[in-house]
Amino acid sequence: MNFTDNCRLVKEASYSLGILTNEQRDEILLRFADKLKANVDYILENNNKDLEHAKEIGLKTSMMDRLALSEERIISMADAIVDVVKLPSPVGIVLDEYDAKSGIHIKKVSVPIGVVGIIYEARPNVTSDCISLCIKSGNAIVLKGGKEAINSNMAIVSLAKEVLRELGHDENYVYLIEDTTRESTNAMMKLNGIIDVLIPRGGKGLIDSVVKNATVPVIETGAGNCHVFVDESADFDMALNIIDNAKTSRPSVCNAAETLLVHRNIYKEFLPLVKERLDKKNVELRGCEDTCKVLTGITEATEEDFFTEYNDLILAVKVVEDVNEAVKHIRKHSTNHSEAIITKDTANAEYFLNAIDSAAVYVNASTRFTDGGEFMLGAEIGISTQKLHARGPMGLRELTSYKYVVTGNGEIR
Amino acid sequence: MNFTDNCRLVKEASYSLGILTNEQRDEILLRFADKLKANVDYILENNNKDLEHAKEIGLKTSMMDRLALSEERIISMADAIVDVVKLPSPVGIVLDEYDAKSGIHIKKVSVPIGVVGIIYEARPNVTSDCISLCIKSGNAIVLKGGKEAINSNMAIVSLAKEVLRELGHDENYVYLIEDTTRESTNAMMKLNGIIDVLIPRGGKGLIDSVVKNATVPVIETGAGNCHVFVDESADFDMALNIIDNAKTSRPSVCNAAETLLVHRNIYKEFLPLVKERLDKKNVELRGCEDTCKVLTGITEATEEDFFTEYNDLILAVKVVEDVNEAVKHIRKHSTNHSEAIITKDTANAEYFLNAIDSAAVYVNASTRFTDGGEFMLGAEIGISTQKLHARGPMGLRELTSYKYVVTGNGEIR
Repeated sequence: MNFTDNCRLVKEASYSLGILTNEQRDEILLRFADKLKANVDYILENNNKDLEHAKEIGLKTSMMDRLALSEERIISMADAIVDVVKLPSPVGIVLDEYDAKSGIHIKKVSVPIGVVGIIYEARPNVTSDCISLCIKSGNAIVLKGGKEAINSNMAIVSLAKEVLRELGHDENYVYLIEDTTRESTNAMMKLNGIIDVLIPRGGKGLIDSVVKNATVPVIETGAGNCHVFVDESADFDMALNIIDNAKTSRPSVCNAAETLLVHRNIYKEFLPLVKERLDKKNVELRGCEDTCKVLTGITEATEEDFFTEYNDLILAVKVVEDVNEAVKHIRKHSTNHSEAIITKDTANAEYFLNAIDSAAVYVNASTRFTDGGEFMLGAEIGISTQKLHARGPMGLRELTSYKYVVTGNGEIR
Repeated sequence: MNFTDNCRLVKEASYSLGILTNEQRDEILLRFADKLKANVDYILENNNKDLEHAKEIGLKTSMMDRLALSEERIISMADAIVDVVKLPSPVGIVLDEYDAKSGIHIKKVSVPIGVVGIIYEARPNVTSDCISLCIKSGNAIVLKGGKEAINSNMAIVSLAKEVLRELGHDENYVYLIEDTTRESTNAMMKLNGIIDVLIPRGGKGLIDSVVKNATVPVIETGAGNCHVFVDESADFDMALNIIDNAKTSRPSVCNAAETLLVHRNIYKEFLPLVKERLDKKNVELRGCEDTCKVLTGITEATEEDFFTEYNDLILAVKVVEDVNEAVKHIRKHSTNHSEAIITKDTANAEYFLNAIDSAAVYVNASTRFTDGGEFMLGAEIGISTQKLHARGPMGLRELTSYKYVVTGNGEIR
């Protein structure tokens, strides 16, 4: 049986998963959490196979870190599942209810999407995270993980399937594509009518490839070329704290700042303070012409720098005339993830919030808050940077669709 | 300047359109409605060019009907615009608002999607309908109409642009791709970062081609292989009325019924009544083996019939064991648009409503109600048959996205 046939079984299974009660779904997840904790050795054994293979092929250290599991990491994977169980069910919620003129009664009710496909890279904890979010929201899941983590993923998924069998459910609620070739990814992206939505989680290359090749609807995630604009009225201490936090607290993530824009009336005074502050964290600055005049010795930024998501301790810096030029720069270069203005001027703040077309727009706070946990969504399956369906951090609610349930007494049109 | 550059201008223009007030958008639309009424002759003149060309190339009569405008049709196009103006604005609505644990204040606010691309066929009224819905919801619009209607569409769009210029707005809020080749459609479908969503409106061929080729997010619309299931406890009169209405009131539309499923315990008694009723409307029945035994002389239905959206006075008929088999048949053959059960059994009704995964599910009412007007959405830009973003009839609300507006006092993470 090839994997397309297996995915058809997942689709078939999704119907019964969709009509389980919340209690039944929670029971599956609690048992799955226990199963992970009871099988730490089994998971580590398989993770070791991946790690050994990774060493052989010379995988870089940052990837090795993402791939490596430990007892502690497995316990926290299990704890994360229990946290999801505690959240309210996102399905069966009546979003709207009314009688139409014709006499029919209309209820708009949230329902699972059906089958969610996740394409991801080397982190095995994504496997258990996504399984818990999908099961909780009544969705069956097709996982396509990176080949680096295949043994770890197979171990985790086999435990989930064991739980489903033990509880008398269809084990096809969860399915891992074990064929780790690019061909199977390409085929998966074209399973219209079987997979209802694809969520790629990973680097820009992966996401661009899914957007380009998929015929199944995609939710684009993750790319974050985020900006902080320091207006002339900004409190310098606040601005420095926010820049420091947005750039250095976790430079590898998508909500980290990549470009600093500074109002012309303050840049001569302010930029040396920025350099002093960020030098302590070993941040490399790349500046526009004006910036380089004030901060002698730094690299000059190219136009490409302003389009780059460094995910590293590098910050591009540009002097702008005012909030209008800041907005124009951001519109041109941003990936529409998160942008902040630091200002005391409420009119400029208002203008910035309205004019910037990003998933999250901030006044006087760090871009680092764009996160399911910080936004109190309870959990996060990714951060959408497209405008269709979901935007910004996606939690359980974003894993649902809705349907119209109509009851009548023989009404015709 | 090629059309990609023109679409970039539309993207640029979308920013200022997005921050107009509702009053400004309404002013544009009211003047557009007046402009259409004041230019009936100009529109008809251009529509005549299309009609003459259509005659020359031998366009079929149903297409000619869709293409042809009249003074009356133009007036009703203008009236439809005024109806849209009367609706509340869907943007700027606070969907959620709260303080997060970190102290930041979060507001989730509805915003325009940005640039909406519409790919459609021969009906020129779609042009003014879509312009009004997009402008009202703050979206710029790129239109790609069928080549049959190019002169009509150019006339209508030039009037919209005239209004925008007269009121001092950017005329690029509205743009028609005048190059009617397939190449331009293909290029349009790949304008990621410029067009935010594509909505194809037309036949299955058009929609399938957009789903297959677009890299821009698509909302799939329109395909409707709708089912009516008559349970053993159904009121026969009610069932006959609903079947008649669902099949014959407007057979060419997507919410018309295409397949009738009948419970085994009643088919011998019920199907002759169906034939008697539908014979009066010249409906051709195509039946399963059991159906053909009762209704002698009708054509036998093939498996392909059960997958076909006839859009015509043809109805496929199948006898099923019970509600379970009805659900299974629908899951396999439906396009997930609209399905109905006719029953007095509340348990079966409940099961059907939960188990059927379609945009609209009905108990004891006609599938023909799946419509923006009937659902009281005020207007309709299409009927989504996918589960992402919007499902079923899409009105103004479905032409919006949202963003998170975050205000702080220097919070860092």
